[in-house]
Amino acid sequence: MDIRDDSGYGFILHGAVAYSENKSSLKTFDDAYVICVNGICEGVYEQIPEEFSNLPVEDYWDKLIIPGFTDLHVHAPQYQIRGTGMDLTLMDWLSQNIYPEEMRYKGKRYAERAYDLFVEDLYVGPTTRAVVFATKHVGATMLLMDMLEETGLVSYVGKVNMDRNVPSSYVETTDGSIRATEKWLAEVKSRGYENTYPILTPRFTPSCSRELMDALGEMAEKYHLPVQSHLSEGLEEIEFVKQLEPDAAYYGQTYERSGLIKKDRKTVMAHCVWSGMKEIAQIKENGVFIAHCPDSNMNLMSGAAPASRYLDEGIRVGLGSDVAGGSNTSMFRAMRDAVTVSKLRWRIFDRSVRPLRFPEAFYMATKGGGEFFGKVGSFERGYEFDAVVIDDSQIATMHKLDAALRTERLAYLADDRHVVGKYVRGRKIY
Amino acid sequence: MDIRDDSGYGFILHGAVAYSENKSSLKTFDDAYVICVNGICEGVYEQIPEEFSNLPVEDYWDKLIIPGFTDLHVHAPQYQIRGTGMDLTLMDWLSQNIYPEEMRYKGKRYAERAYDLFVEDLYVGPTTRAVVFATKHVGATMLLMDMLEETGLVSYVGKVNMDRNVPSSYVETTDGSIRATEKWLAEVKSRGYENTYPILTPRFTPSCSRELMDALGEMAEKYHLPVQSHLSEGLEEIEFVKQLEPDAAYYGQTYERSGLIKKDRKTVMAHCVWSGMKEIAQIKENGVFIAHCPDSNMNLMSGAAPASRYLDEGIRVGLGSDVAGGSNTSMFRAMRDAVTVSKLRWRIFDRSVRPLRFPEAFYMATKGGGEFFGKVGSFERGYEFDAVVIDDSQIATMHKLDAALRTERLAYLADDRHVVGKYVRGRKIY
Repeated sequence: MDIRDDSGYGFILHGAVAYSENKSSLKTFDDAYVICVNGICEGVYEQIPEEFSNLPVEDYWDKLIIPGFTDLHVHAPQYQIRGTGMDLTLMDWLSQNIYPEEMRYKGKRYAERAYDLFVEDLYVGPTTRAVVFATKHVGATMLLMDMLEETGLVSYVGKVNMDRNVPSSYVETTDGSIRATEKWLAEVKSRGYENTYPILTPRFTPSCSRELMDALGEMAEKYHLPVQSHLSEGLEEIEFVKQLEPDAAYYGQTYERSGLIKKDRKTVMAHCVWSGMKEIAQIKENGVFIAHCPDSNMNLMSGAAPASRYLDEGIRVGLGSDVAGGSNTSMFRAMRDAVTVSKLRWRIFDRSVRPLRFPEAFYMATKGGGEFFGKVGSFERGYEFDAVVIDDSQIATMHKLDAALRTERLAYLADDRHVVGKYVRGRKIY
Repeated sequence: MDIRDDSGYGFILHGAVAYSENKSSLKTFDDAYVICVNGICEGVYEQIPEEFSNLPVEDYWDKLIIPGFTDLHVHAPQYQIRGTGMDLTLMDWLSQNIYPEEMRYKGKRYAERAYDLFVEDLYVGPTTRAVVFATKHVGATMLLMDMLEETGLVSYVGKVNMDRNVPSSYVETTDGSIRATEKWLAEVKSRGYENTYPILTPRFTPSCSRELMDALGEMAEKYHLPVQSHLSEGLEEIEFVKQLEPDAAYYGQTYERSGLIKKDRKTVMAHCVWSGMKEIAQIKENGVFIAHCPDSNMNLMSGAAPASRYLDEGIRVGLGSDVAGGSNTSMFRAMRDAVTVSKLRWRIFDRSVRPLRFPEAFYMATKGGGEFFGKVGSFERGYEFDAVVIDDSQIATMHKLDAALRTERLAYLADDRHVVGKYVRGRKIY
């Protein structure tokens, strides 16, 4: 029996509670008990059931307990330049800001100090799980994975692959990229991490040759690895893909034909701002997760993904901060941006795609993205026990708010100051 | 001679410095001195000029010194419900959320405690000036003005007028509204405030009869008072105004014909999301200030004002938090939202209105809105000395950033924690 928690085989958290049962409704309790046994949630109860009456209770009184957030798309090495140089569109921003920054991670000393800042930020905020892009560098990627493992957070981390249309000082050869990936995977295996997993990470079609994509597809198959990349983010990017890959009927096919999008493959694609009908069908059929990154999509002038359409279609959608296209690691802000952007999109662009309501944003930030990790992101029975405790008493108001309104306020007004406790897989990490 | 500062007749602040000289460029210094004499800025210098060498220097080392922000549109009595119930459009939101909340300010005890929370928030944040809606209640409005005066912040505050289309328990009679306003103005005069001014505040055309508007126009003339209201915010609202006032060629005329928009009148209109060509010409001709409130416009599904067009036209534009249509009093966030919304608007709606760049958002938040108060919102010589000192060292990065990049980051990453000093009219208030 794998006992991950610190207090025997289980414990109980007491406070106000909110979580998503499904994508459209928020389940809330003003005063309840969340029960953890062996790292797994046993559900939420207004009174402690007899069978759990011997478990110790951690009393958070009137604080708010929610499932941890999953950041489904974040670039760790871009953290240092977040919030600067935001007056560019995607392709210019990559060449002027991003590639020069990522190159720095060749140096172990820079990588160590820089990733330490990123990991600390993630650790103190409301995120418990993350799906992370690193750089092409195996050494720096291992450093990042070591650091994330140490926090107790759960993450997928990818060494980035790219063999074309990247500055010569940062590009890989096709063979070099494949060999480095094999080396990296061997290193990861030797570490024996408990909470840190590798994920194959072709940067995106513009920077990955067919040959490299095919090799990664084979690796995904051989080692049963998940995949992350970018899809249909910006209009110039999509045009560029059309030029590079004239045989593909649409952008998503460039991943599918290499086995990177596939029915039994766990794949997350960031953005999908401009996916057409066929691409949407492909995403749905293959169970691809979409990482919706509204902050980034605004900053880089990409557009706004039709998130409610994706949810209504039954597509799996989570939220990504996409630092540093997004400027803030805060998943509170990602929820707010998802809602506000959807409203503006509806009003000025496309009345056929309805605005998101807050419970849907909360769902995407918790259960929607959490499902990339399995049964994660809810307090339903059988879910892995990730919980964040929030002291919102400093978000002043005269009103006695119920748990539902308190949860909505988080999107608009909370930040890492309000996070006072974090549990991941039943272990208190903060 | 009016000596407002605390340190004799002048002082010098030393640190990194940023301010707007004009609407499109940011003037920055990595290491400079900002000089205040008798509450007025004497300019920014890399070395202290001989003539000021006897002034005391407050050394902020590598902290960042910027002009204070002006919140050009904020509803103080809506502060308690910010960030909740955000899934409604303007007219429903007013009747379901706003009117019931504003009614509470009839009670002195509620008003006192509630306004205390609002004023405290304004005091600790980066805002030094605000143009504020109160409620219809004279007593509560006086309480709010007393409290604002005590902080040392500078503000315009308006008792709200409304005599139609408001719930019967909150509406005023036309006569009652006019009498209450006269009474309120007499009260204000008797207080002898130094930093707190009255502003006439017809809520908006849907809730103000022609008779009431005319009376307010006369009062504006008689007492030389400025005016604030709302204009062309949402499409349903605009339709409603058309029905109510069929004789007006466009919404803005309903203010103009009562003398509330006029060449020698100082008037600020919130929103102007959907102003047509004629209304824009009217705004420009009469020197009306536009309070651009991007957060609120998204939350209430109003749309997105063409802010860069207004700037390019030479219209006076500032930023408003519009709490509680906006959820956050932070002018840092208002700058970020102004930029991101303009990018999304450009990408998905209207390529004829270019995206805002960060220096323009900073301009609107400082000098653009500040000019409603006179020579305010810059460190140019002759400006009133409002300064905010920011410790951004906790916004971690490996890079040694120059003052320009540090200032841009504020929009995306700063909050009230980073405000470590505030000066208003040369007086240190925080």
